[in-house]
Amino acid sequence: MKTKKISHVGIAVKSLEAALPLYRDVLGMEFEGTEEVAEQKVRVAFFISGESRIELLEATSDDSPVAKFIEKNGEGVHHLAYEVDDLSAAIAALQGQGVRLIDTEPRRGAHGTSIAFLHPKATGGVLTELCQPGKH
Amino acid sequence: MKTKKISHVGIAVKSLEAALPLYRDVLGMEFEGTEEVAEQKVRVAFFISGESRIELLEATSDDSPVAKFIEKNGEGVHHLAYEVDDLSAAIAALQGQGVRLIDTEPRRGAHGTSIAFLHPKATGGVLTELCQPGKH
Repeated sequence: MKTKKISHVGIAVKSLEAALPLYRDVLGMEFEGTEEVAEQKVRVAFFISGESRIELLEATSDDSPVAKFIEKNGEGVHHLAYEVDDLSAAIAALQGQGVRLIDTEPRRGAHGTSIAFLHPKATGGVLTELCQPGKH
Repeated sequence: MKTKKISHVGIAVKSLEAALPLYRDVLGMEFEGTEEVAEQKVRVAFFISGESRIELLEATSDDSPVAKFIEKNGEGVHHLAYEVDDLSAAIAALQGQGVRLIDTEPRRGAHGTSIAFLHPKATGGVLTELCQPGKH
C-alpha cells in the first residue's frame, strides 16, 4: 500500500470563527468554506495549503469526539489524513500486514470522501486517517 | 504574507527506529534518511508524502525540547511547518500584524532550511513553523 500525499491535517478548535483569521489572514491560505459532518458531530472549515488542506474541526455537541479530544488535550492537531487511490484495497493490504484499524469498512467523510482510521495503538499516538477522494 | 504549502509535519517519537516501519512499510512513504540538528538536540528522519514531508523527531538529550514534549504529551504531532518564499519578509509581515513569534530572526533548520516559529499563544495550541527552503 502506498499513500500519495497529505490529504489534510485535522485540527480541533473550540470555535471555527475564532480560528479562521489565523489560517486565512495570518498564514494566508484560501478559505474554502464550511461543512457539517453529522455522523462525527462536527462542523468543519477547509483551507487550501498547496495540494493539501487544513481542516478545522468544531464540535456540534458535547458528546462529539472532537469535544472529548479538546477536553482531554486542549485545542491542537487531531489527526493526519493521507490520500489513497483505492481505500478498500488499502484496508485489505493493512489487514494483511496485521495493522490494527478503527474502520475495517470505508465510511463517509467530508467533501464526498471515503475514509478509514487506523487504530491509535498502531500509529504511535498520531490519529491517522486514509482518505479516498470523492467521485465528483 | 502567504504560505505556499505544508512543508512538513513534525512528529515527536521516542525512537526513530521503532517508528520507521509505520511510515515506510505501512503508509508506504519514501524514506529519505536521517539528520542530526544539534541546536535542537534532535535526530530527524524524513519521509516524502507528495510535495510535503513527514519529519520524525527523536530527542538526543533529556533536556531536548522534544524530550520535554513527550514527557508532557506523549508521542504525537509536535509542529506544523508551512513553506514560504522569503522568511525574513514573512517575519516582518507577521510583526506588522502584531502576531507573536518565538523567532524574530530566521534560524537554521534541517535540510539547509531557514525556519521561524510562531508563538503557541498565537496559533491555538498548534506549534507552527515557517520554513524557507535552502539554496542548494
